[in-house]
Amino acid sequence: MLNLTNVKLGKVRSAIRELFEYGRKRKAEIGEENVFDFSLGNPSVPAPEKVRTELLKLVGEGDPVFLHGYTSAQGDYSVRKAVADDINARFSVGLDADCIYMTCGAAASLTITLNALVNDGDEVITFAPFFPEYSVFAAHAGAKLVAVKSDPRTFAPDIAAFKEALGAKTKAVIINSPNNPSGVVYGEEVISALAAALDEHCRATGNAVYLVSDEPYRELVFDDCTKVPYIMNYYKRSIVCYSFSKSLSLPGERIGYIAVNRAMDEFSDVYAGVCGAGRALGYVCAPNLFQQLVARVLGCTSDISVYKRNRDMLCSALTEYGYEVVRPDGAFYLFVRAMEEDAEKFAERAKDYELLLVPSDSFGVKGYVRISYCVDTAMIERALPAFKKLAESYKK
Amino acid sequence: MLNLTNVKLGKVRSAIRELFEYGRKRKAEIGEENVFDFSLGNPSVPAPEKVRTELLKLVGEGDPVFLHGYTSAQGDYSVRKAVADDINARFSVGLDADCIYMTCGAAASLTITLNALVNDGDEVITFAPFFPEYSVFAAHAGAKLVAVKSDPRTFAPDIAAFKEALGAKTKAVIINSPNNPSGVVYGEEVISALAAALDEHCRATGNAVYLVSDEPYRELVFDDCTKVPYIMNYYKRSIVCYSFSKSLSLPGERIGYIAVNRAMDEFSDVYAGVCGAGRALGYVCAPNLFQQLVARVLGCTSDISVYKRNRDMLCSALTEYGYEVVRPDGAFYLFVRAMEEDAEKFAERAKDYELLLVPSDSFGVKGYVRISYCVDTAMIERALPAFKKLAESYKK
Repeated sequence: MLNLTNVKLGKVRSAIRELFEYGRKRKAEIGEENVFDFSLGNPSVPAPEKVRTELLKLVGEGDPVFLHGYTSAQGDYSVRKAVADDINARFSVGLDADCIYMTCGAAASLTITLNALVNDGDEVITFAPFFPEYSVFAAHAGAKLVAVKSDPRTFAPDIAAFKEALGAKTKAVIINSPNNPSGVVYGEEVISALAAALDEHCRATGNAVYLVSDEPYRELVFDDCTKVPYIMNYYKRSIVCYSFSKSLSLPGERIGYIAVNRAMDEFSDVYAGVCGAGRALGYVCAPNLFQQLVARVLGCTSDISVYKRNRDMLCSALTEYGYEVVRPDGAFYLFVRAMEEDAEKFAERAKDYELLLVPSDSFGVKGYVRISYCVDTAMIERALPAFKKLAESYKK
Repeated sequence: MLNLTNVKLGKVRSAIRELFEYGRKRKAEIGEENVFDFSLGNPSVPAPEKVRTELLKLVGEGDPVFLHGYTSAQGDYSVRKAVADDINARFSVGLDADCIYMTCGAAASLTITLNALVNDGDEVITFAPFFPEYSVFAAHAGAKLVAVKSDPRTFAPDIAAFKEALGAKTKAVIINSPNNPSGVVYGEEVISALAAALDEHCRATGNAVYLVSDEPYRELVFDDCTKVPYIMNYYKRSIVCYSFSKSLSLPGERIGYIAVNRAMDEFSDVYAGVCGAGRALGYVCAPNLFQQLVARVLGCTSDISVYKRNRDMLCSALTEYGYEVVRPDGAFYLFVRAMEEDAEKFAERAKDYELLLVPSDSFGVKGYVRISYCVDTAMIERALPAFKKLAESYKK
């Protein structure tokens, strides 16, 4: 008998992929420009020009034996040093190269971190709506994912419900801000409340619970006044799982890092756990060319003004048509109330208007759809009449 | 409590890494040119020039949104098609794009494959000497690694011992040819005997046992008459775990693939298991730029004449000095009999002559050392007097 958990996982497509594949077929039938595909979170804005010029320099002038050779498992020292310095400069924390572990992207950051922390039977808390693969990653590490509800008016974590969910088996809490799928940013008040609840719980029980921040969307915030708090400034037992996929539009290159807070007492055990988990999962080192690349473009981001324009256009039009929308501060997702109770039925009806929207069920909440607006602005313009007709169809 | 298995794994350096770190310090003390470091399997020959020119073309002319974007989890379709066509042309098998799953290198190929096949309590057989990380990968997947002895005159698998090791719990057999650490190539006779034993066992028990070929060194053979048999031509339930790390000198870029034999009855379940395991372990897709690259340089290899020259020089000199050496047909390792029973003591004494040799204990056999000869030929020339003195020290 094969490993049936993984066989099943390989056969069942995620709701997002399912919809994307439907879109491909539909586009072939009625023409690319007539399908309004809001299914995937694939950056539509190219990488900054500096990415191209630095890659050309590295490949053109670099010594191939070094450039394409193994780095240490944690990542090249000078790259880790550059990442730590950048974090310290931006967030006033005291990291060094040996707090950083370079990874093959956000998913690797998360699976490695969970496998470092978790023993069979532990629980990992997150907040609904959440990225569906969290369940898969937690399950493989041996833990149960516990979803705590958010405030439906703001999609910020419900702190009272969080306190109730904290228990003897809780090993870690994953937050994701700016959030996929809601686009909401957890402000300082939220992070402080989470940290206080965790501190209280750990004091009362003597347990160690880790706060894991999954933040591939950190740089994708649209207003200067929106701050994404850095969790290490609020809670000692904190680990940041970062990826350059969205900030630099490099999702296919698999490059990110784990930053372990030097301030926690058991730092060296946690960091060793990260190294060991990476080894057990088969991650030898993060791709070297892109390690060298990111160290040279720290601070750069893709042109996110496109995403901001898309958000503004969609938010005001959908609100005008009668949709219930929480205006997101970041990422490139809009989480919209379905116009009937069953989000899957709503998403099915949307297909009649060639709108591909992801129903919220797989994100752990009912009654919403996710709109990925990392798309051509022109497609949004073409899609607006369809959104209007869809809304009108519910008023009849 | 953290995951102590992984914490421990992160703290204990492998014997190879330990020696490499010692070498770094020693070089700082007495000068780079006076230390003879044969510890690491890091290609010393640069990637073929075509790798550079194709990378420059891809980065310079490619659409960055496509080039750096997500591919499907299995890998870009046209890349998988090119890989399958190349395999078919070379080995006359009937693969298609959907038999191929692109990976982040050999370690990922193995961990994904094992997690697709194995359930808790299963056994995975391999042949000593073997690459030490096999134990780590098998353990993480929930299996016990069972090491079967090889014939000490040839380092080919002992087929009688293999038949005895096959049991109710056996789920997979890993072979590695050309072999790390012995450099030995398993010829057609060996592969046929393994396949026959497996067929017989499966027929008798009704169990399915998979033959997994870990072959990052496939292209590193030094004589035209040396053939590395393709396991799919000998056994149906076979899976090839490939990496471009050594053939193209790209070990840091993490690019390889899994090829699942289309001819096995349960092909679609096994391939789904691979996809599911990749998802559970956090492998979203293999790095896209290097997926595109390898499709453009299939059939290229680094200049392996350097390794051949190194092998020849070392083999004849060491034999002359009185060492027992099995002359390897491939890879870039030499497995040499220690001159005392305890290989660790022998390797310690070698350090007195500034020779860094890896004792064989972590490869699952006693009484040998591994010499990685993927090094500058000039260093070997400088090291020969030290090898001579070491041998002489045992004759006193």
